[in-house]
Amino acid sequence: MHGRSEDRKTMNPIKTAIFGTGFMGRVHLEALRRLESVEVSAIAGRTSEAARRLAAGFNIPKVAADYRDILRDPQIDAVHICTPNAQHFPMAKEALEAGKHVLCEKPLAISAVEGEELVALAARHKLRNCVCHNLRDYPMVQQMRRLREAGDLGEILVVQGTYFQDWLLYDTDWNWRVDANAGGPSRCMADIGSHWFDMAEHITGLRVTSLCADLQTFHPQRKKPKRSIETFSNKLQGAEDYIETTVDTEDFGAVIFRMGEQLGGQRGGRTGEQTVGRARGAVTASQVSAGRKNRLSIEIYGTKSSVAWNQERPDELWQGHRDTANQTSVKDPSLLKPEARSYADLPGGHSEGYDDTFKQVFRRFYASIGAPIVPEYPQFQDGLRQLKILDAVLQSHKMRSWIEVPAVVGDNKDKNRNQPEHEGRL
Amino acid sequence: MHGRSEDRKTMNPIKTAIFGTGFMGRVHLEALRRLESVEVSAIAGRTSEAARRLAAGFNIPKVAADYRDILRDPQIDAVHICTPNAQHFPMAKEALEAGKHVLCEKPLAISAVEGEELVALAARHKLRNCVCHNLRDYPMVQQMRRLREAGDLGEILVVQGTYFQDWLLYDTDWNWRVDANAGGPSRCMADIGSHWFDMAEHITGLRVTSLCADLQTFHPQRKKPKRSIETFSNKLQGAEDYIETTVDTEDFGAVIFRMGEQLGGQRGGRTGEQTVGRARGAVTASQVSAGRKNRLSIEIYGTKSSVAWNQERPDELWQGHRDTANQTSVKDPSLLKPEARSYADLPGGHSEGYDDTFKQVFRRFYASIGAPIVPEYPQFQDGLRQLKILDAVLQSHKMRSWIEVPAVVGDNKDKNRNQPEHEGRL
Amino acid sequence: MHGRSEDRKTMNPIKTAIFGTGFMGRVHLEALRRLESVEVSAIAGRTSEAARRLAAGFNIPKVAADYRDILRDPQIDAVHICTPNAQHFPMAKEALEAGKHVLCEKPLAISAVEGEELVALAARHKLRNCVCHNLRDYPMVQQMRRLREAGDLGEILVVQGTYFQDWLLYDTDWNWRVDANAGGPSRCMADIGSHWFDMAEHITGLRVTSLCADLQTFHPQRKKPKRSIETFSNKLQGAEDYIETTVDTEDFGAVIFRMGEQLGGQRGGRTGEQTVGRARGAVTASQVSAGRKNRLSIEIYGTKSSVAWNQERPDELWQGHRDTANQTSVKDPSLLKPEARSYADLPGGHSEGYDDTFKQVFRRFYASIGAPIVPEYPQFQDGLRQLKILDAVLQSHKMRSWIEVPAVVGDNKDKNRNQPEHEGRL
Amino acid sequence: MHGRSEDRKTMNPIKTAIFGTGFMGRVHLEALRRLESVEVSAIAGRTSEAARRLAAGFNIPKVAADYRDILRDPQIDAVHICTPNAQHFPMAKEALEAGKHVLCEKPLAISAVEGEELVALAARHKLRNCVCHNLRDYPMVQQMRRLREAGDLGEILVVQGTYFQDWLLYDTDWNWRVDANAGGPSRCMADIGSHWFDMAEHITGLRVTSLCADLQTFHPQRKKPKRSIETFSNKLQGAEDYIETTVDTEDFGAVIFRMGEQLGGQRGGRTGEQTVGRARGAVTASQVSAGRKNRLSIEIYGTKSSVAWNQERPDELWQGHRDTANQTSVKDPSLLKPEARSYADLPGGHSEGYDDTFKQVFRRFYASIGAPIVPEYPQFQDGLRQLKILDAVLQSHKMRSWIEVPAVVGDNKDKNRNQPEHEGRL
Repeated sequence: MHGRSEDRKTMNPIKTAIFGTGFMGRVHLEALRRLESVEVSAIAGRTSEAARRLAAGFNIPKVAADYRDILRDPQIDAVHICTPNAQHFPMAKEALEAGKHVLCEKPLAISAVEGEELVALAARHKLRNCVCHNLRDYPMVQQMRRLREAGDLGEILVVQGTYFQDWLLYDTDWNWRVDANAGGPSRCMADIGSHWFDMAEHITGLRVTSLCADLQTFHPQRKKPKRSIETFSNKLQGAEDYIETTVDTEDFGAVIFRMGEQLGGQRGGRTGEQTVGRARGAVTASQVSAGRKNRLSIEIYGTKSSVAWNQERPDELWQGHRDTANQTSVKDPSLLKPEARSYADLPGGHSEGYDDTFKQVFRRFYASIGAPIVPEYPQFQDGLRQLKILDAVLQSHKMRSWIEVPAVVGDNKDKNRNQPEHEGRL
Repeated sequence: MHGRSEDRKTMNPIKTAIFGTGFMGRVHLEALRRLESVEVSAIAGRTSEAARRLAAGFNIPKVAADYRDILRDPQIDAVHICTPNAQHFPMAKEALEAGKHVLCEKPLAISAVEGEELVALAARHKLRNCVCHNLRDYPMVQQMRRLREAGDLGEILVVQGTYFQDWLLYDTDWNWRVDANAGGPSRCMADIGSHWFDMAEHITGLRVTSLCADLQTFHPQRKKPKRSIETFSNKLQGAEDYIETTVDTEDFGAVIFRMGEQLGGQRGGRTGEQTVGRARGAVTASQVSAGRKNRLSIEIYGTKSSVAWNQERPDELWQGHRDTANQTSVKDPSLLKPEARSYADLPGGHSEGYDDTFKQVFRRFYASIGAPIVPEYPQFQDGLRQLKILDAVLQSHKMRSWIEVPAVVGDNKDKNRNQPEHEGRL
Repeated sequence: MHGRSEDRKTMNPIKTAIFGTGFMGRVHLEALRRLESVEVSAIAGRTSEAARRLAAGFNIPKVAADYRDILRDPQIDAVHICTPNAQHFPMAKEALEAGKHVLCEKPLAISAVEGEELVALAARHKLRNCVCHNLRDYPMVQQMRRLREAGDLGEILVVQGTYFQDWLLYDTDWNWRVDANAGGPSRCMADIGSHWFDMAEHITGLRVTSLCADLQTFHPQRKKPKRSIETFSNKLQGAEDYIETTVDTEDFGAVIFRMGEQLGGQRGGRTGEQTVGRARGAVTASQVSAGRKNRLSIEIYGTKSSVAWNQERPDELWQGHRDTANQTSVKDPSLLKPEARSYADLPGGHSEGYDDTFKQVFRRFYASIGAPIVPEYPQFQDGLRQLKILDAVLQSHKMRSWIEVPAVVGDNKDKNRNQPEHEGRL
Repeated sequence: MHGRSEDRKTMNPIKTAIFGTGFMGRVHLEALRRLESVEVSAIAGRTSEAARRLAAGFNIPKVAADYRDILRDPQIDAVHICTPNAQHFPMAKEALEAGKHVLCEKPLAISAVEGEELVALAARHKLRNCVCHNLRDYPMVQQMRRLREAGDLGEILVVQGTYFQDWLLYDTDWNWRVDANAGGPSRCMADIGSHWFDMAEHITGLRVTSLCADLQTFHPQRKKPKRSIETFSNKLQGAEDYIETTVDTEDFGAVIFRMGEQLGGQRGGRTGEQTVGRARGAVTASQVSAGRKNRLSIEIYGTKSSVAWNQERPDELWQGHRDTANQTSVKDPSLLKPEARSYADLPGGHSEGYDDTFKQVFRRFYASIGAPIVPEYPQFQDGLRQLKILDAVLQSHKMRSWIEVPAVVGDNKDKNRNQPEHEGRL
């Protein structure tokens, strides 16, 4: 890979591009600027004017209205895909085919079939691939994972939580995500429910094996403004001119599920297998819950102790005990498990927020480019995993019954996470 | 009814008896002593010695090992049933037949069939009847109910919560409730899940119309001590001598459900009917969740605003808003809805706890004896309602499918709660 | 003392009387009714009608408008003084002289001189005496004390907190406490500040040795209603008819102070002595702080760990650590120090509130009557201690300087608290 | 100023330098990289190797061991001073004399005399100057300020809080700040107390007029490691080799104070004047409080409502009310006062942390360079203000008495903050 040496730090920064100039595009840009040895060299927008506006202040040399112009540039090593969901698949596919490492916003694609193609393509081209489940990288989320890995929780019994927002509470709230054509057939479960399931599986190391889901579209009609409204900005922008529009993406979902361990895997040549686990769980997701701004809460109960965390207070972690006082820690590197410590850049009580999670994901993604290390970030196969859960959710709701969730082949990273992968030797 | 006049307060206190001398029996006794115009006159225990120990310090004249001795006493107006669940039905039945008003600990009975018999019997004898869903009577729970009644929440969209404890986490934890013979076929859902569903229906005025449940017994074997262990006391008492015992009551339950309005009712002579509602919900209950001591949490989201409450901080109420700051109030009578104010006996910030909820229920129960007022407390038909939900939960789990929950005839009290009932003219 | 035997429980309950029928009188009555072996036998009110109203529902045989009628009754063993502050001294004095055990609401008196007389009188007559610093008896406050005694905190470095209420925020708020003639020269510091200092000294075992105080009367004029307004009830009662009245009791106080150990004491026959301690502290008290209903918060920092508690969430305790996660416990008897366990009557997570603290104090007071045990409740000398601190606060404010706080002779109970006192052998 | 035009954004970024490569230097660098139109062009370190290590990953062309090398470079427009406190004065002075805009970490200098010289020098050279009281720029702190400006709090009555950390709890904890030669005569009050007072004055618009302070050095001896320990890193690094060292900087301080309005000011040509205000306050600061990692808490009580905020949960704001429920808001731009909105870059519930406050300060500092706008950031005169308060604190402690705090000439920015300043027309 470009024969980068140890001192690439000074000589030869990795050149990257951003596709998309909306809320997520700007968040990615700012986080990339905080990294050593990475240079944002190009931006693609819906229009070249939109791209130019974002590029101007940072001396980014190349802008384009057609992302393919950027893919054709051999100087570009990697791309970030920050466009509406329906574009993720074609953009990621072409980027991989152009030999670029790809970091894609979630969801990875609109269907599991698309997701499988991308996983295979990345493996075939031996390219680094990341799906941006950035919420994993809050320091306290990593602390929960490391507590579980160290056995502090014992056997996992119960996993539960919510992901609640209120920005689509009114029928006058609109965003491209409401429209199934731009965002895919699922909204609330795909946008935020998938973050929750990714976190639950990441922390516990377990996999959802079966589930029963109930979805609800409280507003079957919404007033779509005639001009475009960026994600979240509807609360501040009134719109005068509407079209009454039928909505079939869900405002709310409730899921009960069972979890077990992932067995088998790619080495044996067989498809992945899951055991029917003893763990039980429940989750709800909503975009119509007044007062909840971005409340992802997760609670994990084991035979030895419990943990609970809430994204609206990201630097805090609750640990529950039967025989001693419960614990509520404020993030402090000196109190984190050694393996979680590198996710906290600041000293105790100096809060780290949403933007900082992107810095953590991107730093690890770029560290893995050209280096023989095991990815410590969510990969395409994790994005595919979420698409399979999502398929099961949609099917369960439709059939009003329990559904089995198929395993993802090769998804056994928790078993071998201390061994360098083949893909690492690029 | 004994021709009580206005000045019964001084002349003629109501005489009551308590059946059961365990944790709940003592809680009832202490709460009754705080009431005006009620006199605890008799106690029945498993042994007369147990009854005497409790009676001695309060100059309670009558004790018995056989509760029938007390039922035969014409001086006794009412009885409190605080014994293990399986005894609720026979005791309540005999008490009604003996012409006593009955306040029964929950669950009302072990099956819906038993419950229906008790509801009918109380109606036939025109006796006051209460099932002790005391948690309704926290001041902040009443505030949630009154906010909903006043329309402050708008239409209810989502209802969710948990009831988590940890006192049965280990397989060395034991209590009569673990044993299906003493406690009935359901443990966790019957003991604490029923409190949650009662509160959810009480606050929202809606009824669960269908549900899908998943139960789990994490400890299929527990070590049963050879001597008796009182509820909750296992944490402080070691037991040396055990018998390995098979357990089939559940440690955990997860339920997703739909709620709607109760229509029809007794007046039309037809059975109660429920509409298929738009509201959605989820609840989990657990007795094996390390660190959660008695955490009943409930969150209700409406089209206008939301409320959330947690029994471990009973004097606090969260109200969520989309367009203004969320609210977190500390209990203060001057800030409660006028209809909720009588549930708070103390000024702002002077905490009221678990014991105080019994005082509130009992005060209202005794105020209704001999007075033409509509009961403002949970009645046998509310207890029956919980038995029907519980039946549906058990059946749904067994069949691994969604189940409809039948309505309770006459359960439309929210519609006519401002009119005196016939039963009121005793 | 009346020759009570072991089985007085059943035979011979202690007979007690309550002076005062306001908010505190009713709280005392209800708490007394929860106790074994104590009988409320008489009530004195401003009018006999007021006394009769309170007595009626509980079959209390004797009522009086003149408390001396009750003091003359030889059947009465003890009295509770729940009247406005200025009456505490004469009532307590006469009660002791009449041979009654006395439980007095705080403050013990209006001046330290009065307080000293009462302490001496109680000692001379060998009568049990209690000043109602009931807030000590929250289970979590006792837990803090026991953690300190066990050395878990190490050496105490810093003690700080607040006691904030909002019920006198407006100049239209009025109560007898505002009037120096009824309540004494200090209001906010005497009413609530004294609770804070009592708790701080009780938990730490240290004594305030010097202090610097700043008081403020934000409303030098208030509108006094022509009719009487009971404590706290002003928020719910409008008053139509006012008199503009000059107020010289303080709305707010801030105090910085030093703490040390009490040395010497009664045995040596010398007056008590205090060392100049290393510990430092600060406290503020206010009755004009919008939104704070009854927020007594206290934080204690030691060389090993810290504790923090807030009366608005009485069942929670925070413990701070440098080298491990902080702890936040929910009250659970099984997690309390053994010495604190008897202050919790209910199992884990079953909240205990303000009313329950009175039950704890009264139970211990009555257990000590006629029994050779060391008082485990605040005594008159503790009330005198608060009067001395209050004198220092008033003087410091007036002189705008630091003031030494004199020790109370015989105040070394922490040294000998495991030995029965002479007074115990009644 | 270098004739920058409107489109400097793309053409001509401002070139800046950082002095200091420790914890603060790295924080400044990362925040600067997030800004449009600013380029970090030089770094000075204790050694050129230290500077090079920081510069390498960001392609920063110039490094120096002698900061004067950078001051001599005419390409450099501005400098950030992030070195130990004792170097702030000489570096800032030389930078201003070299014509550089200066952003200096707090404290501005070690004495008020030095501070006055810097204020005068910056004014004379008409250079932008900022002292990095970044904590002002949390969105919720700005919201408190704007609520006060809008009159929502009414007249301010009480201001109180704490700033508590635990990183210097043990006598084995060491950092250059402990040493008066490197950090100045005050440690805890200068390092963190000054942030608190800056915030209190910034939010309320009032000025501390007099105070009484008590300081304490709990560890008069500390074990100084033979090698250097960076700020906060002591918790993670053991040191083997120590020197017992006498410490005279304080571990703890408690201050009670009075606040009033700043009158007069520069226009009248007279020195600033303060009225003796009615507001009262108290604050404590500590670096030895186990479990408190970085807890700056501030509470402000007014005649209409109250606010409270805690840096360990920076996205939350409590508002207290007497007549309605209290409010607890999660940061959401749509719920902020319009004037506070630009301090929040992310949508509701997407947490912003410590790093983000630097971005906010720096963005406003650089926007003011070359533009005729009123500085919306803390300036040298604000840093001087803190030095004067600090002088009063030290003197009060020494004399054990109340001390008046002199006003800063020209400190009346709240009066004219909507008018462009002279310095704006550069």
